[in-house]
Amino acid sequence: MALPKQVKIVEVGPRDGLQNELAVPVEAKIALVNALGHAGLTYIETGAFVSPKWVPQMADSSDVFAGIERLAGRTYAALTPNLKGFEAAVAAGADEVAIFGAASEAFSQKNINCSIAESLERFAPVIAAAQARNMRVRGYVSCVLGCPYQGEVALDDVAWVAEKLWQMGCYEVSLGDTIGVGTPLHAQRMLSAVAAKVPMEHLALHFHNTYGQALANIASCLPMGVATIDSAVAGLGGCPYAKGASGNVATEDVVFMLHGMGIDTGINLNQLVQAGADVCQHLNHGPRSNVAIAELAKQDRTP
Amino acid sequence: MALPKQVKIVEVGPRDGLQNELAVPVEAKIALVNALGHAGLTYIETGAFVSPKWVPQMADSSDVFAGIERLAGRTYAALTPNLKGFEAAVAAGADEVAIFGAASEAFSQKNINCSIAESLERFAPVIAAAQARNMRVRGYVSCVLGCPYQGEVALDDVAWVAEKLWQMGCYEVSLGDTIGVGTPLHAQRMLSAVAAKVPMEHLALHFHNTYGQALANIASCLPMGVATIDSAVAGLGGCPYAKGASGNVATEDVVFMLHGMGIDTGINLNQLVQAGADVCQHLNHGPRSNVAIAELAKQDRTP
Repeated sequence: MALPKQVKIVEVGPRDGLQNELAVPVEAKIALVNALGHAGLTYIETGAFVSPKWVPQMADSSDVFAGIERLAGRTYAALTPNLKGFEAAVAAGADEVAIFGAASEAFSQKNINCSIAESLERFAPVIAAAQARNMRVRGYVSCVLGCPYQGEVALDDVAWVAEKLWQMGCYEVSLGDTIGVGTPLHAQRMLSAVAAKVPMEHLALHFHNTYGQALANIASCLPMGVATIDSAVAGLGGCPYAKGASGNVATEDVVFMLHGMGIDTGINLNQLVQAGADVCQHLNHGPRSNVAIAELAKQDRTP
Repeated sequence: MALPKQVKIVEVGPRDGLQNELAVPVEAKIALVNALGHAGLTYIETGAFVSPKWVPQMADSSDVFAGIERLAGRTYAALTPNLKGFEAAVAAGADEVAIFGAASEAFSQKNINCSIAESLERFAPVIAAAQARNMRVRGYVSCVLGCPYQGEVALDDVAWVAEKLWQMGCYEVSLGDTIGVGTPLHAQRMLSAVAAKVPMEHLALHFHNTYGQALANIASCLPMGVATIDSAVAGLGGCPYAKGASGNVATEDVVFMLHGMGIDTGINLNQLVQAGADVCQHLNHGPRSNVAIAELAKQDRTP
């Protein structure tokens, strides 16, 4: 039990964030990804290759990949639910891909219209195709601390799906509190249950801030040794289950906390705040990051 | 090192909160205090007896005290910086009083126009007068994790002032992160330094959420045994040092976390959310509580 010296931030704003916001022009997305790279983010989930019928906000992901600067030492990743999406991601030049499973049977049925077991079967060819190209695959597990449809989710179910994704070949499994209802002890117990199946260095926390708990949950899990945190600049992305509520925990707030704890991220907080403020010019709200709001206010640029 | 089984919430919304908001009609203040009492809050800082020249929002504190229901088992407290304020608080019927010191010399000079040592001298007659009436006195220490004027504040300075207030007769010392810049390890170190001088059961955390860190800091300190948390319903109160930024941590968010951790507060969260939503009808913003925003959205009453 020791705090990590360094934490890798997986920036999901351009994908998980913007897919739950008003549509943003492709130029603004490109500028955002570029600004994030310059601010020191080393892993940027840049887009998704999913049905534009379901997620119109991501329909221009190929254009985003085509337009961005490819800074050295950065990974530009894409979400790809199936082989068709994977091939589009490869064509667009994604460095690696991610797949998206659930720990809740009810959520899997409602969200991707199949059972958890069936979803894993669908991922197998994506993982095989990625491995054939030496591309890494990241696995998401949603609803690890609660489900909007079934309520509680058993820790055993979370650990089971995480282990499956790991065994199938995902190099990292990201544990998502999709509806942001987790609290510190629950988060610790969940991480402990999963870490019994998947090595801690291959786990990431992906916590939403819907109930304001994300940073407390992250702080409570860091002493367990987890060293990869998913977050979205400006807290991009709302909550489809509570309109107007917060979505992803804000990268600015996570970075402020980590730096305050003496944990290195390699990120320039001022540049990060600016990147978030800029993309919010295209949205119907300002940054959902307390750090950004406070910093911009101090600079007299109240968002 | 064990989590408390119960936490006492000190609700500071009607005072520390509303003194940093637009003026609210006295009827709305009375309704707020009553609603908080019915929601299960047992300690409500109801008003302040300070110069109306400096804090016009608190000018009607006598009327608030005169108008509220006095529920059994509740403490209705008032801030009283000096003997004149104390006597007004007694006349109004306050159950107990609070005094307000600083751990930062620069803040003390700018905020109350005297040195820390001089401020302690001014408190002595207030404490003596309260003791003569068997009234308890609570002591605040501001700037325990940082100062808007001098920046860093030495932990020794925090511990020194806290110990002085304790020795002078305050039954509880509330440790305020006035500008909300603290992070978890800093908060733990500060609490540890103070607890070496004042018994933990006589300490309270009073953390602001300006940089989004308050709940993470509270979560990090709870395993040290601290069992009193100051907070404000709806996150009332902004930050005078960053216009538009968050102030006090929201009671709703604290209670959601504590209940999720199996820690009892005696508070009904639904009634608390409603109390916050109601008072925000009189302000120029909705609740600054993620729990309130999410819950109201789920009820289709987007704030």
